[in-house]
Amino acid sequence: MQNDAQTLDTLQTPCLLLDEARLRANVDRMKAHLAGLGVGFRPHLKTAKSLDVARIAMTNPEGPAMVSTLREAEYFAEGGVRDMVYGVGIAPGKLARVSAIRSRGVDLAVILDSIEQAEAVAAHVRDTGDRVPVLIEVDADGHRSGISPDDGVTLVGIGQRLAQGGAVLRGVLLHAGDSYSLNDPAALAAAAENERAAAVKAAESLRAARLPCPVVSVGSTPTARFARDLTGVTEVRAGVFMIGDLFQTGVGSVAMEDIALTVLATVIGHQRAKGWIITDAGWMALSRDRGTARQSVDQGYGVVCDLSGRPYPDLIVADANQEHGIVVVRRGSTAALPNLPVGSRVRILPNHACATGAQHDCYHALDSAGAVGAVWPRINGW
Amino acid sequence: MQNDAQTLDTLQTPCLLLDEARLRANVDRMKAHLAGLGVGFRPHLKTAKSLDVARIAMTNPEGPAMVSTLREAEYFAEGGVRDMVYGVGIAPGKLARVSAIRSRGVDLAVILDSIEQAEAVAAHVRDTGDRVPVLIEVDADGHRSGISPDDGVTLVGIGQRLAQGGAVLRGVLLHAGDSYSLNDPAALAAAAENERAAAVKAAESLRAARLPCPVVSVGSTPTARFARDLTGVTEVRAGVFMIGDLFQTGVGSVAMEDIALTVLATVIGHQRAKGWIITDAGWMALSRDRGTARQSVDQGYGVVCDLSGRPYPDLIVADANQEHGIVVVRRGSTAALPNLPVGSRVRILPNHACATGAQHDCYHALDSAGAVGAVWPRINGW
Repeated sequence: MQNDAQTLDTLQTPCLLLDEARLRANVDRMKAHLAGLGVGFRPHLKTAKSLDVARIAMTNPEGPAMVSTLREAEYFAEGGVRDMVYGVGIAPGKLARVSAIRSRGVDLAVILDSIEQAEAVAAHVRDTGDRVPVLIEVDADGHRSGISPDDGVTLVGIGQRLAQGGAVLRGVLLHAGDSYSLNDPAALAAAAENERAAAVKAAESLRAARLPCPVVSVGSTPTARFARDLTGVTEVRAGVFMIGDLFQTGVGSVAMEDIALTVLATVIGHQRAKGWIITDAGWMALSRDRGTARQSVDQGYGVVCDLSGRPYPDLIVADANQEHGIVVVRRGSTAALPNLPVGSRVRILPNHACATGAQHDCYHALDSAGAVGAVWPRINGW
Repeated sequence: MQNDAQTLDTLQTPCLLLDEARLRANVDRMKAHLAGLGVGFRPHLKTAKSLDVARIAMTNPEGPAMVSTLREAEYFAEGGVRDMVYGVGIAPGKLARVSAIRSRGVDLAVILDSIEQAEAVAAHVRDTGDRVPVLIEVDADGHRSGISPDDGVTLVGIGQRLAQGGAVLRGVLLHAGDSYSLNDPAALAAAAENERAAAVKAAESLRAARLPCPVVSVGSTPTARFARDLTGVTEVRAGVFMIGDLFQTGVGSVAMEDIALTVLATVIGHQRAKGWIITDAGWMALSRDRGTARQSVDQGYGVVCDLSGRPYPDLIVADANQEHGIVVVRRGSTAALPNLPVGSRVRILPNHACATGAQHDCYHALDSAGAVGAVWPRINGW
């Protein structure tokens, strides 16, 4: 889709801008890093939710790719992606929709972490004849779902139930979500090694029981970025790295100057006595995500940049209402408030690319000259 | 739009449910309250963003109504609404779009709080001949935008600039946003009186300078609910009251049993040793809003209810990832974790109806028997 000769001065605000050169550089760096480690790459498309971005991120127009919703799986299938994993523990009521996608020639796999779910998949295979491939979710670090890598009995029990039921046991999958709370390169490398070791241990439990485990899949942006050795792993998944955000900057996994996403906003007023500049990008445009509040540098609802994308010194969105952002100089800073009259435009680096992206229905791509290029649609919903 | 005989057991999750009887009761109560105070009612449609809901909330199919984006104004204009105020300080670059909506026979007014904006509107009137109506935004309580009601010089200066420029000065508008931080009925009634007094004072400044001020518009859900006397006010705006949420329950302006919105979710796993139930409603479905974290009762990401809408004792969504909600018994409670196997369904009361609604593209209305009725589309974006 093409813009009708829009510029950063004419786009209706608020809207999403995506710097294509930064996006491509982030992708190329990750691909080179993982190739050097000898593992495959399955980009997670839950951040971008855009076929245009997916085609840049994937190693091949048909995948592989990771998705977080069946809506994404349907959308990317429509766009030609043929190798996907749906990365949220499967609910029995979603299996019919999984098979409908698979019937279109898509190798869509599911994940699970309980005997109950394995029974449901086995029953579905029996009823439909669709041998849905399954990865068993393993818990790397107590973050969320998954079976402990030390619980070989349950792992093997699930694997046997799937095998008996005619499902395809494809392997194990982990997500080291607790790496998000770190910010030290050595600790992040240790988290990556912990994730790898848990994955390999779980895979060995299955293989020792003569169960297949061709895929050993790990991933998160921080552990993907800081992994030094991935022996025994077959593929890495990561998503937010390609777009980046202030939270990942706080973790240390994406430099601020590599963040590809900004929200374009217009100044709509001032409260001069308080040092406030008010813009039309409130939390609806930026999202309610305040993830940096728990990090060493709290970026409010985002860092305010000029139209070239350069941050103003210590200028942040300190507070937000639904359609109002309150821009101030960070507390304790001696930086001057820039002169931004009503109608001026700024770009705001977001805390969390997944959350901010989801507030919008498209990206306006910026070309290498910083000019507004194509419109890249994105999806939401389930 | 009709559901194809969907039930709470068959809808794809996560999705939004809207209890039509509660919605109608909330609207009827507000209308009766404001009629008793002798003021008009301009429902704010920024929470619902749905024509089906708007038709229940408005006193007339043509309005009046309040909107927070021009996208809403366009959508509701398409649906026959003819009297709207766009309630975010106007950026000069949006005036062409305002006039395009007005050219379709819609009385769309804008708000502003600076001489710069008044100059821009005057220039637009001169260039286009469209005499855009304007309300001057007045600051009731230091919450956000607006001119101090004590600053008669600026108020009158703006009014004169508009009058000279041929714009229609329609009146003053206030939003007592700081009432959201209160939770005591007497303090809320005082905030409503403060909002009224500020509005009347600003209107009197304009009238004393022989400027017109036919409209004196105030509003927020808490002050609308607790106002006892609105002498001098012509209309009240409120939006979230009709749907309700846990934040408004914390303020005291909507009872928990009157909240009309829930997110339907499916249990997808457990971490039994930790007392966790994991559902497919993460922050993408619930929103990142954690507004109750600052209130006396922190509801996490939401209160978990059974399919009839009755809360389980002390069961909340304590944490959330993008597509995972972690449900636990509230810390300190002795309530038992309910037995909810994989595939079970629950309904989650949200912290903030505006934020949660925006994560979805439709409501599934529940009829008075609690059955799934019509699909009501909703919009997002700008």
